[in-house]
Amino acid sequence: MAESDIFINADMGEGLGLHSFGHDETLMSSVDAINLACGFHAGDPHIMAATVELAASYDVRVGAHPGLPDLAGFGRRRMLLTPTEAADLVRYQVGALTGFLGAFAMPLNHIKPHGAFYGMLAADEELMAAVAEVNLQYGVPFFGLAGTAHETVCRRRGVEFIPELYVDLNYSAAGELIIQRKPEMADPEAVRERVSQAVSGQPIRAVDGTEITIEFQSVCVHSDAPNSPEVAAAVRQALAA
Amino acid sequence: MAESDIFINADMGEGLGLHSFGHDETLMSSVDAINLACGFHAGDPHIMAATVELAASYDVRVGAHPGLPDLAGFGRRRMLLTPTEAADLVRYQVGALTGFLGAFAMPLNHIKPHGAFYGMLAADEELMAAVAEVNLQYGVPFFGLAGTAHETVCRRRGVEFIPELYVDLNYSAAGELIIQRKPEMADPEAVRERVSQAVSGQPIRAVDGTEITIEFQSVCVHSDAPNSPEVAAAVRQALAA
Amino acid sequence: MAESDIFINADMGEGLGLHSFGHDETLMSSVDAINLACGFHAGDPHIMAATVELAASYDVRVGAHPGLPDLAGFGRRRMLLTPTEAADLVRYQVGALTGFLGAFAMPLNHIKPHGAFYGMLAADEELMAAVAEVNLQYGVPFFGLAGTAHETVCRRRGVEFIPELYVDLNYSAAGELIIQRKPEMADPEAVRERVSQAVSGQPIRAVDGTEITIEFQSVCVHSDAPNSPEVAAAVRQALAA
Amino acid sequence: MAESDIFINADMGEGLGLHSFGHDETLMSSVDAINLACGFHAGDPHIMAATVELAASYDVRVGAHPGLPDLAGFGRRRMLLTPTEAADLVRYQVGALTGFLGAFAMPLNHIKPHGAFYGMLAADEELMAAVAEVNLQYGVPFFGLAGTAHETVCRRRGVEFIPELYVDLNYSAAGELIIQRKPEMADPEAVRERVSQAVSGQPIRAVDGTEITIEFQSVCVHSDAPNSPEVAAAVRQALAA
Repeated sequence: MAESDIFINADMGEGLGLHSFGHDETLMSSVDAINLACGFHAGDPHIMAATVELAASYDVRVGAHPGLPDLAGFGRRRMLLTPTEAADLVRYQVGALTGFLGAFAMPLNHIKPHGAFYGMLAADEELMAAVAEVNLQYGVPFFGLAGTAHETVCRRRGVEFIPELYVDLNYSAAGELIIQRKPEMADPEAVRERVSQAVSGQPIRAVDGTEITIEFQSVCVHSDAPNSPEVAAAVRQALAA
Repeated sequence: MAESDIFINADMGEGLGLHSFGHDETLMSSVDAINLACGFHAGDPHIMAATVELAASYDVRVGAHPGLPDLAGFGRRRMLLTPTEAADLVRYQVGALTGFLGAFAMPLNHIKPHGAFYGMLAADEELMAAVAEVNLQYGVPFFGLAGTAHETVCRRRGVEFIPELYVDLNYSAAGELIIQRKPEMADPEAVRERVSQAVSGQPIRAVDGTEITIEFQSVCVHSDAPNSPEVAAAVRQALAA
Repeated sequence: MAESDIFINADMGEGLGLHSFGHDETLMSSVDAINLACGFHAGDPHIMAATVELAASYDVRVGAHPGLPDLAGFGRRRMLLTPTEAADLVRYQVGALTGFLGAFAMPLNHIKPHGAFYGMLAADEELMAAVAEVNLQYGVPFFGLAGTAHETVCRRRGVEFIPELYVDLNYSAAGELIIQRKPEMADPEAVRERVSQAVSGQPIRAVDGTEITIEFQSVCVHSDAPNSPEVAAAVRQALAA
Repeated sequence: MAESDIFINADMGEGLGLHSFGHDETLMSSVDAINLACGFHAGDPHIMAATVELAASYDVRVGAHPGLPDLAGFGRRRMLLTPTEAADLVRYQVGALTGFLGAFAMPLNHIKPHGAFYGMLAADEELMAAVAEVNLQYGVPFFGLAGTAHETVCRRRGVEFIPELYVDLNYSAAGELIIQRKPEMADPEAVRERVSQAVSGQPIRAVDGTEITIEFQSVCVHSDAPNSPEVAAAVRQALAA
């Protein structure tokens, strides 16, 4: 794929009740696709409705961002699930999102699991195999980490796989994401540099200094970082360069 | 419509976690369509998955049974909602159900709101108008009470309306349902009699003795009554007679 | 009571998971007592623990702020409860708070219901009577609106009653609060003026221009207003003047 | 301790909304102490109020049965918690229970964690140490498994420890409980035999046939087994013999 095809995705709609991360609208104008929280780790029906409407107005593609059922932990605490349970959680949340997409005649664009669930599926082929069936059911790609169970299971089951680069999280030397419990500011300059290196095929630095090469077709920006619109803008600049 | 076209519907999947009403399988074999709880007043993703699979195996049609977000109150406590909020709750829950139906290539059959939400929509045309848009979005009928906002709004908006007869709840003299907070045994003999009378166009008795005429195309049986399979059997007998 | 005894209370800990209103620490230094959310309309065990610790460090008194079980609606949607249910909700939430207070050997200071629940109790003596029993059980005062069921029931049952003045909400001509679904900026100048007038016994203006006199021993500041620390500072100035 | 001091405890109040396990009253008359669900894995404020009242009428001691926040999984799916989070969950739930106990002037009798949380604390001294602080705060014993972190941490921190024998769950050869996701009938004859053997100091059989010796001062009966009152009666017979 040509570098110019690399697109930006962002988690969005991760508020609840009165709460939001406050800059969903600014961020919406800077991304190509969003991963919309579906009410289990964050989000509620009213926020989902409003966020789908916002995405429709910006012509941004919308995928599901299913998480573990854990509002207090924001879906960032691992939970022991059976493969069937994992698939049930995804079917429920993805289905719920389609209820809002249908109101705007928008198709479901993709599925990308959230937080600890994302990590659990990267590490467990059996869990991932159950979830991949939901992608087949909806005929949509899975966004995930190259070189993990995300990719191996998708390739085996014939699910389109879109590998991602993270710019506001650290990688371990093994290429795994280090998911923080609390969002932090990301330095736009460092973001620009990481994207530029990665796009040109150079390795990036893991948290211990090891150089790792990340294969990707999309760059992910987190909406819960306090300066996420700046981060998105930095990614866009680096991709354009 | 010919009497023989009258069908039986039952609320189902209204358990949570380890809990169920215990006779969903027996009841499934006695009904034509179910209204499946979608996780807000009862039900969870795992129960929904299992109930859809059970319905598929019995060739029973499945509709959504969206309720108020109130597990402890089993959706039987009225809640002040705006029309937009009401529609959002329905979109979320109906969508969630379609995630499970899709796994069995089953279509969504209808939408029938639960408990206090059912009563709120019967009494408020503005709320009902917002919910009717979800029926239009999915192209499915609405199950409700004839002579209420359920019917008037559906007719006005062009949503197919299926009026129901309740056999295990009492009616007020005004033809409104008296929704109990706790399920009770229904007397199968009384059920048979009510259905026979109603089918032959005779009036039935409201709780104060008034005679009221109920227009219906379907008979509803509640799965939370301790003897719901017997009640369903009594309805079937009366319809067959 | 002398004007100088008038104290400032604020709702606090109304975040959830990753979300907070962001200025709890600044606000904590400006108030005398807080009403701590208990997990039903907002708040979670981890936020409660952190907020009690913060209050302890500022020597601020902590009361319970029980709400309706409605995270997505932030406890601002009325719900039909029986008196027993209302008391159960309060016992659960107040008890939960004492679990955290006990870790700092802090006493429970008071009970003040949240949002729609506050309004329901102001308007319904039967509901309020059930809740007043929880105040008697804990031997703490109730914060509420003078001239409503809050006051009449507390006086009848021997519960200490602390009437409040609201500076960031409007009053109806009947002296009832108009609870907004979404927080808004409050103008510090208008706040200062309202408090000064009210403290000197002058009437304040209801939303329709009617002049109403509000009896109060405490002034409430909402933490969800974007500029709540400024509002609290304005109240403090007006009280000191 | 003399055999006659061995007492029976049972988990109770593990329903939700309309659901209960249906024989709480019968079981209440057969046990000495209950572990009352606190709303996270099961239970709700109304069930807690009713169960405390029932326990008061039978003069049964009431302890807290805090679980993981997972209604759909009935608290039987492990979740990755920090020690602080574990303590927060316990403080919240134990506190909530005391709100209901206070209405009957009943003291909190003990703390016994539920399901997966019980197992997590048995296996992790750091988690267990955080929870033991809550026992110290309330000055109540901890019910748990002898020979695990439950016991070692309680002894180290000076928390009274009450070891339990389980009669309706299997043990691994290492003496760990095998927690089922779904309750099953327990054979009253096998229960009687296990208790008789254990009381007389004989080893019992682990699931793989290994003989293990269980130290205990209390016997636990699960209320979610379909025949729990019979199981409790069998335990009582064996203890009396």
